[in-house]
Amino acid sequence: MDNFTEIIGFTAAILTTAAFLPQVYKTWKSKDVSGLSMPMLIMFFIGITGWLIYGILIHSPSMIFANAITVVSSFLLIYFKNKYGKK
Amino acid sequence: MDNFTEIIGFTAAILTTAAFLPQVYKTWKSKDVSGLSMPMLIMFFIGITGWLIYGILIHSPSMIFANAITVVSSFLLIYFKNKYGKK
Repeated sequence: MDNFTEIIGFTAAILTTAAFLPQVYKTWKSKDVSGLSMPMLIMFFIGITGWLIYGILIHSPSMIFANAITVVSSFLLIYFKNKYGKK
Repeated sequence: MDNFTEIIGFTAAILTTAAFLPQVYKTWKSKDVSGLSMPMLIMFFIGITGWLIYGILIHSPSMIFANAITVVSSFLLIYFKNKYGKK
């Protein structure tokens, strides 16, 4: 993996992660989880965990970085859905 | 890249892509784009394009597969936002 490839990877990582975090923040502040579906969130969480394992297997720093953050944030969405969805 | 790695990758690809498509479908049917922010969509689109290029550079079939689909679907969200957001 050369430097150019990792620069592309980290640019992608920062952009897609930064686009996802406001959703987590918005859900946390508004406590509005009506638009989120639990099966979808769990599917997404398992999928991102898969990408994280994939990133580790191919030794990709940018994939490990991006998916580690997204695993945590998608877990938070599951937690919010479970907490606020029961009212 | 061995078979086991690509099985993990394709599992991840199918799960994250499948979790994203209902959002595109919901937006298309409801024409409700109020929850979508254009700068965020554009950031996400450029980010996914970056992951697609990254997947090509590292010769990862599962990353190319997943991100090619997501590039198209995030472009559709930008198109819907532009079309329905102007009413």
